[in-house]
Amino acid sequence: MATELLVRNVKPLGGDNIDIRVVDGRIAEIGPGLQPGTEAAEQIDGGGRLLFPGFVDAHAHLDKSLLGMGWYRNEVGPELTHKIDNERRLRVEQDIDFPRQAARSARRSIADGTTRMRSFSDIDTDVGLRCFEGVLAAREELRDALDLQIVAFPQSGMLIRPGTVELMEDALRNGADVVGGLDPSTIDRDPKGHLDTIFALAERFDVDVDIHLHEPGELGAFSMELIAERAKALGWQGRVVISHAFCLGGVDEARLAQLIELLLEADIAVMSHGPSGLRPAPAIKRLHEAGVRLCTGNDGVRDAWGPLNMPDMLLRCFILAYRNNLRRDDEIEMVIDIATHGGAQVIGMANYGLEPGCAADLVLVDGETHVEAVIERPPRWLVVKSGRIVAREGECLM
Amino acid sequence: MATELLVRNVKPLGGDNIDIRVVDGRIAEIGPGLQPGTEAAEQIDGGGRLLFPGFVDAHAHLDKSLLGMGWYRNEVGPELTHKIDNERRLRVEQDIDFPRQAARSARRSIADGTTRMRSFSDIDTDVGLRCFEGVLAAREELRDALDLQIVAFPQSGMLIRPGTVELMEDALRNGADVVGGLDPSTIDRDPKGHLDTIFALAERFDVDVDIHLHEPGELGAFSMELIAERAKALGWQGRVVISHAFCLGGVDEARLAQLIELLLEADIAVMSHGPSGLRPAPAIKRLHEAGVRLCTGNDGVRDAWGPLNMPDMLLRCFILAYRNNLRRDDEIEMVIDIATHGGAQVIGMANYGLEPGCAADLVLVDGETHVEAVIERPPRWLVVKSGRIVAREGECLM
Repeated sequence: MATELLVRNVKPLGGDNIDIRVVDGRIAEIGPGLQPGTEAAEQIDGGGRLLFPGFVDAHAHLDKSLLGMGWYRNEVGPELTHKIDNERRLRVEQDIDFPRQAARSARRSIADGTTRMRSFSDIDTDVGLRCFEGVLAAREELRDALDLQIVAFPQSGMLIRPGTVELMEDALRNGADVVGGLDPSTIDRDPKGHLDTIFALAERFDVDVDIHLHEPGELGAFSMELIAERAKALGWQGRVVISHAFCLGGVDEARLAQLIELLLEADIAVMSHGPSGLRPAPAIKRLHEAGVRLCTGNDGVRDAWGPLNMPDMLLRCFILAYRNNLRRDDEIEMVIDIATHGGAQVIGMANYGLEPGCAADLVLVDGETHVEAVIERPPRWLVVKSGRIVAREGECLM
Repeated sequence: MATELLVRNVKPLGGDNIDIRVVDGRIAEIGPGLQPGTEAAEQIDGGGRLLFPGFVDAHAHLDKSLLGMGWYRNEVGPELTHKIDNERRLRVEQDIDFPRQAARSARRSIADGTTRMRSFSDIDTDVGLRCFEGVLAAREELRDALDLQIVAFPQSGMLIRPGTVELMEDALRNGADVVGGLDPSTIDRDPKGHLDTIFALAERFDVDVDIHLHEPGELGAFSMELIAERAKALGWQGRVVISHAFCLGGVDEARLAQLIELLLEADIAVMSHGPSGLRPAPAIKRLHEAGVRLCTGNDGVRDAWGPLNMPDMLLRCFILAYRNNLRRDDEIEMVIDIATHGGAQVIGMANYGLEPGCAADLVLVDGETHVEAVIERPPRWLVVKSGRIVAREGECLM
């Protein structure tokens, strides 16, 4: 028999209060004054609360989290390589239980209303596939609460650490959905070699590409050109994300216009999480208005890189708005769109949204307006994933 | 008879758990294993919670807050003058109850652990002294919970609006503690005239100076030079704050070194709240290491300028750390110091700290470390102002 859930009296962004009838995990009807289809339907009175579609954390690192392991006192050096080396060393010293840590971090994301996620998994010749397998295990454990994509990600470099490519191939044969790259010049010291290898893996396994690009200014802009050339040559338009893309914040207006044109031509999306730091950051409103597809995510939560990120996508919306000085309601509503519909589109997850036929991924929150919820960030009153209640009052039930 | 409070088993930053004995609002003893001095002493078991000294919000705008008035949909334009004009218009349209709004915003600050504050009060020829009188009333109403300094602040310009100086004089005769200025070139269009007038008021009323300086790059740097010249000429070293000081983030390294030298020579302090926006921001670690005195504050909370600020100083610590990319524990501990001891020093409030003789301004919070409290920001379990319990579990009792 079909299972049915009727959520009454909730307020979607930009609309009047409505009801949502969910049958077998999908939205069957949405609108005012709905009636249950069967007597067995579970009914919930939303009390006029705010309704968001499930949040999409399009850039997570579940395998890095130290949540619940006791406070990690961070004394790491300032460079990117300090952070990478520190983490690799910590993993050896602490013998981290990756399935436990990935699930712990994911549960807190679920409690905060994330229903879909793309998580990177570090792959290197020290840790092998243990991070990846940990995230795979968490995906299986929480499959009813979270749609989880996994990116095979060579965090410590790929060409500079022989054996890494073979490990990435293993991951892509065994459940990784996406191939990841990073900083082709500053880490692998060989931008052509790095990107040729990444795109060859993408073609061979028919997977999307997601590249961390921290490289600043013209170096990052050059990498962006190389990525766009390959996306077009391979026909991978619409299948590539550049994560962070700090260089978009560090070039002059004329060069920025060129890079935006390049992103549009190759249909490359950008992930920005509203980076910490004093340097200029990518201007998401400018990118959005130009038509660049955007997503956002919480990045590494409470890990050896630092404690500044948390699993809450409403907090991420706040940070993205703050970093971009977006104060108008319509601007902050754009940020909410990036953290929901934008993310689902960019990471290619189907059946997303508040329309009939979509998976019923729903978040209910106290508040007067959706923008106020970004500012106040109350505990999530209810989180529903494909018609199943997965969190209440800020607590994950899974 | 003396009133006594014994708070047991709390954890100060960088130390082991201790007890604090408070007599007549001041710390009498601090250390392990204290005994009450009298049978009538109230005793509280802190349960090993984290102890902070009361937070110091050194830059607030209590008169601007729209908290509790229904969500204000922000559609304001991008320029500083748009925001100033929009707010002045709103005040006429909405007939805002300034005493109520100032007290409402202050209560939420108290609930979040702020025990000392410097608040600007807008003074202009439309609103007259009504904002100022509202903050005065709130100060009186909440005098047992919050030490409140008031800055007479010509938000809409001073020389361009004849009559403003006379209103500021009225405020300084009737309870304002500090004279404020802003952007001498971009608002008043007369940097010499603006600053000469501000410093003349400072001398005449023997008050400190606090100047909002949003002016970017070399324009802001020039204003900073003019301010320093006047501080030195008048002997006002140690009595001037430059708030925001965005120009410190927008000049090259050599010029920054000059400006730092200037700030040190004139002993001018800087208030940075970790500004929103894509532009470079003042590097607080660099300033701190150079010996520039620093404070921070929440700026305007939930007002017509935008919704991004909230009254919570732990959130402000997070924002300041995030904006400056401070991830190490020692760096975030520096931020906590700026939000407590730094603020008290800069705004010249005496008897501050966790030493015998200081006013007993105490905040107790759940958590493993003080840095974790900045990240997790739990409701304040207890807030004590001069020995009196003023908030519990995130609720103001005053």
